Amino acid sequence: MQLALNLAKKGKGWTSPNPLVGAVVVKDGRVIGQGYHETYGQPHAEVNAVASAKEDVAGATLYVTLEPCSHLGRTPPCSDLLIEKKIQRVVVGTFDPNPLVAGKGIERIRNAGVEVDVGVLEKECQLLNEVFMKYIITKEPFVVMKTAMSLDGKIATVTGESQWISGEASRQQVHNLRHELSGIMVGVETVIRDDPKLTARGPNSKNPIRIVVDSQLRIPLASTVLTQQDTAKTIVAATERADSERVKTLKQMGVEVIVTKEKSGRVDLRELMKTLGAMGIDSVLLEGGAALNFSALEEGIVDKMQVYIAPKIIGGKHAKTAVEGAGVADLKEAFQLNRMTAGMVGEDLVVEGYLDK
Amino acid sequence: MQLALNLAKKGKGWTSPNPLVGAVVVKDGRVIGQGYHETYGQPHAEVNAVASAKEDVAGATLYVTLEPCSHLGRTPPCSDLLIEKKIQRVVVGTFDPNPLVAGKGIERIRNAGVEVDVGVLEKECQLLNEVFMKYIITKEPFVVMKTAMSLDGKIATVTGESQWISGEASRQQVHNLRHELSGIMVGVETVIRDDPKLTARGPNSKNPIRIVVDSQLRIPLASTVLTQQDTAKTIVAATERADSERVKTLKQMGVEVIVTKEKSGRVDLRELMKTLGAMGIDSVLLEGGAALNFSALEEGIVDKMQVYIAPKIIGGKHAKTAVEGAGVADLKEAFQLNRMTAGMVGEDLVVEGYLDK
Repeated sequence: MQLALNLAKKGKGWTSPNPLVGAVVVKDGRVIGQGYHETYGQPHAEVNAVASAKEDVAGATLYVTLEPCSHLGRTPPCSDLLIEKKIQRVVVGTFDPNPLVAGKGIERIRNAGVEVDVGVLEKECQLLNEVFMKYIITKEPFVVMKTAMSLDGKIATVTGESQWISGEASRQQVHNLRHELSGIMVGVETVIRDDPKLTARGPNSKNPIRIVVDSQLRIPLASTVLTQQDTAKTIVAATERADSERVKTLKQMGVEVIVTKEKSGRVDLRELMKTLGAMGIDSVLLEGGAALNFSALEEGIVDKMQVYIAPKIIGGKHAKTAVEGAGVADLKEAFQLNRMTAGMVGEDLVVEGYLDK
Repeated sequence: MQLALNLAKKGKGWTSPNPLVGAVVVKDGRVIGQGYHETYGQPHAEVNAVASAKEDVAGATLYVTLEPCSHLGRTPPCSDLLIEKKIQRVVVGTFDPNPLVAGKGIERIRNAGVEVDVGVLEKECQLLNEVFMKYIITKEPFVVMKTAMSLDGKIATVTGESQWISGEASRQQVHNLRHELSGIMVGVETVIRDDPKLTARGPNSKNPIRIVVDSQLRIPLASTVLTQQDTAKTIVAATERADSERVKTLKQMGVEVIVTKEKSGRVDLRELMKTLGAMGIDSVLLEGGAALNFSALEEGIVDKMQVYIAPKIIGGKHAKTAVEGAGVADLKEAFQLNRMTAGMVGEDLVVEGYLDK
């Protein structure tokens, strides 16, 4: 199963909105086939694993990270293939929460006389597809809030210098994440101040769709995210109060403009998430400024935090921190994280946690 | 040696300004004696280990975390005891940097024909005595800056609520640290705002000496740290500009007042450290407010950071952070930490690191 997990990870960034799946065929204690879901629309992991086998898979055991599908999608149901090929036993990492599958895949192969075990390395298999697990149920993107700060919680010095607080290894990891997730979201202030590219810079990378939250359409027309749309698509989210002429201009530039109703004078982030989800965007990396980060937490759209902590102290009463806005008044109102873990990335620490919902 | 290290730790909080030392006597593969330096002025670890042996230690191997002493202090030199008892081999964790020892202990026993190995679990043995290693050389206290914050770097909400950001397990660990270190230092603002006890609350604890940094002697005379001096001694550090009548009043209350020259209108922290060191205070836990923390970093008196990070997000542009003051303007001026490590304490993360000097 660990091998199947490793195979599954090779699909990172390419399978959206499909899950990452890996599969291994074992016969007489030998691995005779392996495969993974490589790209959306292409064959599933089970199909690739079976096809890769150089000998007859009849009587073999198939290890697969996610329950085999039972429905006809872009490809025929995998459960039927396993039955047809006379696989004797199937070991499944975790159930597929997709309402179209949800246990039906396992039922189907079990009814055909195949031995089935479920729940091997289950947590790892669920974690691998945390994006898919949310999106398939809610149809809203899985949102990861990422920030990089000093050990005293500053994201910039008092003069505003922020490049770079985190180290090379952390920055590369963030570029990997940009490749893996479907969208990247920032506030317009970040665009005005830094004019970022918001692309994934790494070997063999896919750029995320860029989403700029910009209630009043203050985005400069010369911004890189508007002028360089051949590298990645850009969406600008505004409110109903935004100037309609400006909307027209942006659309003429090939920019997709999403207009939401106003919420406390700002873009309604929950409505925005629904719209992005409906567009097929299953995941968003939020690299927002301090105000947008707080709004996102308040609106409850954040699923996961990823905080890079550099081994330095910046200080300063007026230095910016990762989450500002109004803040919570009482400690009992603080946003709670669960499953917090920490690890080293180069010289930095990376802390991850999930928002209590 | 691991057993000797574990023994040594039992002396935590009681040996100051002596080092923590543990020793184990092994003969024919069996532990026949063990001991540690229990309290300042009492026998050294080697003496206790040898004395605890129920059989003749001649021909045995002694494992000791720190080089045996060669000088006559409050107790006779341990090296002579080992020679006299015909110990055959001595395995030493690390050299004793004490100028009175510094290799002379090892030389002495080696010259007497005892086999000596140095450097077993050396890093652990050095880390165990990081306080001693600094103090014995510089005669200034080892300063640990401790803070507790949310994952977005806040030490209080916008309304000032700060009790408790960190969890029960973290707070207990801080009480252990208060017991282990000789002094605890805060700014007068903390005393005015919270009226803390600054004692070590844990089983069998020793209270640290309380040090309040208070340039102009604004400390309220009814403060707990002034009125409850039977539980722990209190030192107030002021500048030359402090009112001399006020100094007299405090002294009459049994408070020790240290007057330093002014540095940017504040207490000269370097001078204060020299004075505290001369008083025999080998270590200080700095639980300062944000301004004192920044001054301490600027003055270069901090040796180690210990940051408890709770799994919560507080937010707020005006919420306090751990280190404020003026802050550094450029990232290249940021205070760098090395040997940063992280671990979990209950639900919190604790991050430690050492200041580059």
